[in-house]
Amino acid sequence: MNNRLAARRRAVASATADAGAGALLVTDARNIAYLTGFRGSGGAVLVQDDGDAVLCTDSRYELQVVEQPPDVGHVISRDYVAGVLARRRGPADAPLAVEADHLTLSASTALRRALVAAGAADAPIVETSGLVEQVRRAKDPVEIGLIERACRVVDEAWNHLVAHGLVAGGRSEREVAADLEHAMRRAGSDGVAFETIVASGPNGAHPHHVPGDRLLAAGDLVVVDFGATVSGYASDCTRTVALGGAADRLLDAYEVVRRAQLAGVSAVRTGLSCSELDSVSRDIISDAGFGEFFGHSLGHGVGLDVHEAPAVSSRSASTLSDGDVITIEPGIYLPGLGGIRIEDTVAVTGGGGRSLTTTSTALSVL
Amino acid sequence: MNNRLAARRRAVASATADAGAGALLVTDARNIAYLTGFRGSGGAVLVQDDGDAVLCTDSRYELQVVEQPPDVGHVISRDYVAGVLARRRGPADAPLAVEADHLTLSASTALRRALVAAGAADAPIVETSGLVEQVRRAKDPVEIGLIERACRVVDEAWNHLVAHGLVAGGRSEREVAADLEHAMRRAGSDGVAFETIVASGPNGAHPHHVPGDRLLAAGDLVVVDFGATVSGYASDCTRTVALGGAADRLLDAYEVVRRAQLAGVSAVRTGLSCSELDSVSRDIISDAGFGEFFGHSLGHGVGLDVHEAPAVSSRSASTLSDGDVITIEPGIYLPGLGGIRIEDTVAVTGGGGRSLTTTSTALSVL
Repeated sequence: MNNRLAARRRAVASATADAGAGALLVTDARNIAYLTGFRGSGGAVLVQDDGDAVLCTDSRYELQVVEQPPDVGHVISRDYVAGVLARRRGPADAPLAVEADHLTLSASTALRRALVAAGAADAPIVETSGLVEQVRRAKDPVEIGLIERACRVVDEAWNHLVAHGLVAGGRSEREVAADLEHAMRRAGSDGVAFETIVASGPNGAHPHHVPGDRLLAAGDLVVVDFGATVSGYASDCTRTVALGGAADRLLDAYEVVRRAQLAGVSAVRTGLSCSELDSVSRDIISDAGFGEFFGHSLGHGVGLDVHEAPAVSSRSASTLSDGDVITIEPGIYLPGLGGIRIEDTVAVTGGGGRSLTTTSTALSVL
Repeated sequence: MNNRLAARRRAVASATADAGAGALLVTDARNIAYLTGFRGSGGAVLVQDDGDAVLCTDSRYELQVVEQPPDVGHVISRDYVAGVLARRRGPADAPLAVEADHLTLSASTALRRALVAAGAADAPIVETSGLVEQVRRAKDPVEIGLIERACRVVDEAWNHLVAHGLVAGGRSEREVAADLEHAMRRAGSDGVAFETIVASGPNGAHPHHVPGDRLLAAGDLVVVDFGATVSGYASDCTRTVALGGAADRLLDAYEVVRRAQLAGVSAVRTGLSCSELDSVSRDIISDAGFGEFFGHSLGHGVGLDVHEAPAVSSRSASTLSDGDVITIEPGIYLPGLGGIRIEDTVAVTGGGGRSLTTTSTALSVL
């Protein structure tokens, strides 16, 4: 475990050197967890030029810090940034890299002041973006195993819901979401990976609908988008089911999305560009005449964050490689009528794709 | 509803003028919801000098935006900041206030560039902190009503758990958390306000323990810290129960925490300083010889955020006033043995305090 963490930190130290700095101040909670194993809700880490690290957190975590990252130095202080800066090696005016997408403007202003106070005339801060996230993109087998466990949880929970008739006319979106989250918890989830979506009937036309009091009714398609977390790693899955009597246009759209989704999953291979992968599914939907009703990108990476690199979209500059874990989630959203989305979490491994979520995507009429 | 939102924006515009700027760029999601009613997961708002506002979000929310804030102008664009800046009134080089605790360094750098490109030679950005949060502190009756509903949810869920014997020896922390979250959902929660804590036996000595596979056992105290969300507003409650056979030292500590908590709730009144309130409870714990085992502050404000102004701690400079909603949550944490925390959400109203969470804090031996 500690060798894995040390290797990650060395990779980050090398990327930091490429960015022209000697050390990286890490302030994003998931990046801190990734590099040190520490999973508290507040802290900062300094990765030195050789991959050594120091973690600063507050007294709430005094006991955890002793238990958790044995090969990382630690400081207890409420002022996380000052805490790690005090242990920085080398001259105060050496360039210091920061995570510009995570550090707030006020923290950055305070950091500049602290560096000047420490004798750095010009406070040379190097704004970096995604240094740790790029290292996080390539998952090792242990990480893929954890994501797979989080996918087992969603499979088990979904099967439970369907088997017990819990997605049914007369039940509210909110009740279905509650039962699904409970089933995920009981199947081993540490908590939801994101807010569960249950969008029934016309609500399905909103890709990010929040479950409410609407009762499921005959004629509805019901879009259910849900994810679990296991040891910090997320899963992400969407299934759409029908209650009896759904309109033909919705049933036609369902089959189009299903074909687009299967084609996307089948196309996954090392070396394919993410924009090409997006096209594989999108072209099927466009050719069927539904192109204007699929407004979002095809997918995204999944890991410690449920949305991370690589983006799977028409604008993505990424190319798939072994160790990527991504979603494939095409949809069609028909205003006033309803929506369809089908989504699997897929690992890129051994040159090809393997779906980690495995429940059927054939249309279930419940 | 819209009058309430407009009044909030005028209060923010006035605070912005006091800070020396003509408009405030709002990028925090909860502040955006507070000022416009929009509750999507991405966007930016510009509050102009008279309280008028413009919201920019992306195409995922095209339908919501039309339905939601009828008195707020809106722009659909992926580049939220540029989207609202295009609708800014007055000269490009007028000082622009930003939320320095929420704006990232990279967004701030991009903003500077955009301002210079728009003709502002010097890009005069005014870093502000907590402008909207200070307005949010004073809850109106509708907001207190929503927090009270979120408190009804936790009361109902807790009573359900105890009545059905779901906190019991042989069950895991994770199962108890799952059942509690399910009960909250069924009682009307939109989702947890924070990660539920179930900390049994020695785990109770960690104030922020994450529920795991440990089975509850005779002799345990079990700390359960949980909150619900209703229409965006949070509740926060902790109860500690005993399984049979708990050590006398733990039972003694329980009664000390209970006395300290009751004294804190009873002391709440308009005009009392938050640091004095902290002392009321802390002194009781210290006098009983447990002072070193109560390391955190007494409480915090609760609203759209489960942790917001005012801080209730020895270092707080705030004074209670009508419309505050705060927690009172003293605890004692005995390493290796266990912990106790008792917490209510309390509204400051009519000059005094009223507990919105109402389940008994007398020790239950389950």
